[in-house]
Amino acid sequence: METNKENLFKIRHSAEHVFMHAMRDLGLQFLMAMGPATDDGFYFDFELLDGNISESDFPKIEAKMNEIIKQNIPIVGEEIDEKTARELFFTNPYKQEWLDEIKNKGEAITVYWTGKPHEMSSFVDLCKGPHVNSTGEIGVIKLLSTAGAYWRGNEKNKMLTRIYGTAFPTQAELDTYLEELEKRKQNDHRILGQKLDLFTFSDLVGKGLVMYTPNGTIIKNELNKALVKISRKYGVQEVNIPHMAKIDLYKISGHADKFSEELFKVTSHFDEEFVLKPVNCPHHTQIYASRPRSYKDLPIRYIESTQQHRDEKPGAMSGLNRTRSFEIDDGHTFCTPEQIKQEAINTIKIIEEFYTALGMWGNQWISLSFRDPSTPEKYIGDNNDWNTAESLLREINDELSLNAKIMEGEAALYGPKIDFMLKDALGNDRQLGTVQLDFAMPKRFNLVYIGEDGTEKTPVMLHRAILGSYGRFIANLLESTAGAFPVWLAPVQVVIIPISEKTHDYAKEVATTLFDLEIRYEIDNKDETMGNKIRKAQELKIPYMIILGEKESTAQNISVRNREGTQQFGISLSSFTDHIKNVIISKSQNL
Amino acid sequence: METNKENLFKIRHSAEHVFMHAMRDLGLQFLMAMGPATDDGFYFDFELLDGNISESDFPKIEAKMNEIIKQNIPIVGEEIDEKTARELFFTNPYKQEWLDEIKNKGEAITVYWTGKPHEMSSFVDLCKGPHVNSTGEIGVIKLLSTAGAYWRGNEKNKMLTRIYGTAFPTQAELDTYLEELEKRKQNDHRILGQKLDLFTFSDLVGKGLVMYTPNGTIIKNELNKALVKISRKYGVQEVNIPHMAKIDLYKISGHADKFSEELFKVTSHFDEEFVLKPVNCPHHTQIYASRPRSYKDLPIRYIESTQQHRDEKPGAMSGLNRTRSFEIDDGHTFCTPEQIKQEAINTIKIIEEFYTALGMWGNQWISLSFRDPSTPEKYIGDNNDWNTAESLLREINDELSLNAKIMEGEAALYGPKIDFMLKDALGNDRQLGTVQLDFAMPKRFNLVYIGEDGTEKTPVMLHRAILGSYGRFIANLLESTAGAFPVWLAPVQVVIIPISEKTHDYAKEVATTLFDLEIRYEIDNKDETMGNKIRKAQELKIPYMIILGEKESTAQNISVRNREGTQQFGISLSSFTDHIKNVIISKSQNL
Repeated sequence: METNKENLFKIRHSAEHVFMHAMRDLGLQFLMAMGPATDDGFYFDFELLDGNISESDFPKIEAKMNEIIKQNIPIVGEEIDEKTARELFFTNPYKQEWLDEIKNKGEAITVYWTGKPHEMSSFVDLCKGPHVNSTGEIGVIKLLSTAGAYWRGNEKNKMLTRIYGTAFPTQAELDTYLEELEKRKQNDHRILGQKLDLFTFSDLVGKGLVMYTPNGTIIKNELNKALVKISRKYGVQEVNIPHMAKIDLYKISGHADKFSEELFKVTSHFDEEFVLKPVNCPHHTQIYASRPRSYKDLPIRYIESTQQHRDEKPGAMSGLNRTRSFEIDDGHTFCTPEQIKQEAINTIKIIEEFYTALGMWGNQWISLSFRDPSTPEKYIGDNNDWNTAESLLREINDELSLNAKIMEGEAALYGPKIDFMLKDALGNDRQLGTVQLDFAMPKRFNLVYIGEDGTEKTPVMLHRAILGSYGRFIANLLESTAGAFPVWLAPVQVVIIPISEKTHDYAKEVATTLFDLEIRYEIDNKDETMGNKIRKAQELKIPYMIILGEKESTAQNISVRNREGTQQFGISLSSFTDHIKNVIISKSQNL
Repeated sequence: METNKENLFKIRHSAEHVFMHAMRDLGLQFLMAMGPATDDGFYFDFELLDGNISESDFPKIEAKMNEIIKQNIPIVGEEIDEKTARELFFTNPYKQEWLDEIKNKGEAITVYWTGKPHEMSSFVDLCKGPHVNSTGEIGVIKLLSTAGAYWRGNEKNKMLTRIYGTAFPTQAELDTYLEELEKRKQNDHRILGQKLDLFTFSDLVGKGLVMYTPNGTIIKNELNKALVKISRKYGVQEVNIPHMAKIDLYKISGHADKFSEELFKVTSHFDEEFVLKPVNCPHHTQIYASRPRSYKDLPIRYIESTQQHRDEKPGAMSGLNRTRSFEIDDGHTFCTPEQIKQEAINTIKIIEEFYTALGMWGNQWISLSFRDPSTPEKYIGDNNDWNTAESLLREINDELSLNAKIMEGEAALYGPKIDFMLKDALGNDRQLGTVQLDFAMPKRFNLVYIGEDGTEKTPVMLHRAILGSYGRFIANLLESTAGAFPVWLAPVQVVIIPISEKTHDYAKEVATTLFDLEIRYEIDNKDETMGNKIRKAQELKIPYMIILGEKESTAQNISVRNREGTQQFGISLSSFTDHIKNVIISKSQNL
């Protein structure tokens, strides 16, 4: 039996054809380029030859699509020869380019007809299928938005028009999806980030170069502090490296060869060639190599939250999720082969403790990310080492009952890894923690230690990140909490609201107590009603509001309201500060 | 009356001539290039035409120099015309180049003769003086070391030989200086940094790109924490920016124009031109500009410890003092004109509190660093603003009785500043804290706030650094303490020394207590004598040693020895931890 997912895919793929079909029947002049069904619906890219198209045109196109659906026209696949294909699409350079490619690959050419094959009134496109049998099976459709997109995603090519849409078997399913979409839009981290004043971008600084404002910096710093504190229990030490290095460093590591497209070159007025660091591992090998090491010194575990740089395409960047500079809690352990397993397990323990403190443990799925045996050119290191490393990860998976899925082709450049994945609010998989085994890089950098037998040996490297990219992590946290951070992470933990000017002095006294206890607060002295002030604090998801009227001032106590609406009147300041300190220190999810 | 300093300068300047004179009389073949008297002695650069010269040749040259000194030959200045000068130095292209330059400037040509003018046996050099009257006044001389140096400091020119030497009126003064020099060599931060394992460099990473090891990172982080904690009292907030930006940002700020030689260019595969950030101010203006601001929001105070990059000449780099990437605690306040004075005063208070915590307050001298009115092309901004800013700094100087010296030509690109200077262990002035007024940059970036009257106004920027460059600061701290850091900064605060294997378990128990109190410790379990372990801890300047024998284990107490040699036997662990926690929290200079 067909799964629901396969059926949805067919429905959307066919809806996409019906969309083009409707555009044609409406007399629009355009060249079809390409478009797939996606997890959420479909999109199609085309070159509009005349006029404009905007969301206001959607109802008209949808009406025409529904007409075609109602007619229940058969959708039929056909394999054709190159000559026929070239003729069918003779006015369309995009399709001609597709045909070149199909020919180069030596694949068969298939088209799908909506209507009788080879009739002028039928719609036809180059397509591998699959589709539903006839348009009547499509259900309900909806066009969603329009955007620009480069032909084949390359900025050097022409900018095309892209229209997004979706289709579901029933109206009820579509409505649920549209509601969800609306919620997602409101929780988009870019919008929330602006509203809560967490980060910003500037055209003068450049695309994908994020700047964290004071509020966002607090969140970043608190995450880092939590991470360092947990890691310290496992003997991890912080180090600090520069942001550039001679390209020679990456020639040895292999990055210059495998990722040259992603490297930013740095030019000195003098004679050396530099790049911005895309990863930290090569620098960390140089700290390891700075002194003689003995087996007694191992494991040596470095951690560092520092920015990395990758030359992303300007069009590929998106909020905090894809940026040109991004901070990662990048760590490297150097150990003996015998120590690998325990070190990997310890890192998994750190991951568990950290995500538990964020209330996120239990939602993850785990991947054993192995080589793709069919593309050995993508990796460095020798085959035996890869086999050993992959077996070790399998053992750890069994011992800890991780129930990981094996994902071929997801390994790192230098070795296999265990990835902790989380579905974000938009349903996408996000890689969070990762533990990666590497037998290759220590050899390339000639790293050694003196073994118990007095001879030189090569250490093994474990690459690991607990939190991953701070930007991505914060984006995900924002979208999943809608900005209602746990108290320990909230940039402003308390807002003090004096009801009138008469209690401004008392507000300052209360503030001093909070300051001394290192509780993050703001005083809202603005000339507004208390109702407005509470509403504003609520919108900013500030965990607690301390409300100070003359009654509180006289009694030298406070009234507290939390962001969930719970209120307490006339309690002592110290009972509140005891409570909040406890919530902060225990990293509680509750208020 | 002549000061001692002026006299020393003459002695050394004359010694430098006698040095060349002696080289000539010994029959060495060379071309004189140039050489000055310095604060420490003198040096001379020359091109050796034949053979080698090394420190083993020094005694022979010194003997010849002493002969010339003993002969008490007169040293006589003379102004000569160009033709005579060209002839006098006709075989020497370096002197011809000097003569070109003197001619271009339209200055008079002077030479100094050792011996009768225009006699073949006399020594002559192009020189502006002043000198002692005759070689007999020189006192005692000493040649110190040899090095390579590019002609006029430019790598594109020929590499010359440089010889360093010194001279003093008496042997006793020379001996004191040589002793001091030996001590300085031992306290050189590059040597101490290696010994205490604080930082490292790697040829693969590149010159001047420092990597901090775990110990050095602890010091950096502790300094930053202390700084942020003090700053927080004055409403300063941390922000976080990327390490690159479009060059457009620096075209507006003026850096692209004034410092283009120091900028590292970053090349993307796409179309924009980037540079590595040489300063933070332009980025911080963009955070300010990310939302509308009202006078009620001001002052806004950003601080950030982050790396900056400058394209230093490979030959100019030196340990942590001059590097291509360096971290600075760079901060910027945006305020109204009325708030400038209080904000500047608050920053000076932060500086005072910070340096007091390091036991360094009281040794500084203060500079009011103003424009050089003769080189207006070096600055941006308009004249009235400069005058206002300089008057304001004078007022602050008077009000706080800073007794600052006015240093013309030491201003920043955008405005005058108050600099806090410290003489380092080598007698050089090092800039530590700085407060800088800037009316220019906010205008260039069109920054605004809504004033109390509802109209748009331009804020003023204060640039400030408390600690300055972390690298330079740590170098200075290392050289002045010889590595004996105050306890709160010491990378390892306690070493636990079990006397034999029998007390290894007890050592672990003690360690757990220290760990829980966040005291930084190491256990020295190595198979060595207790004497050796104590000596090693002493050499590494570890503040406290906890020594655990069977006696201590049985009594469940500890013996403690501090790095100054004071010992306490059989005290309770908790009395020690109370003491050390107190020393750490109060940032005491004592043990």
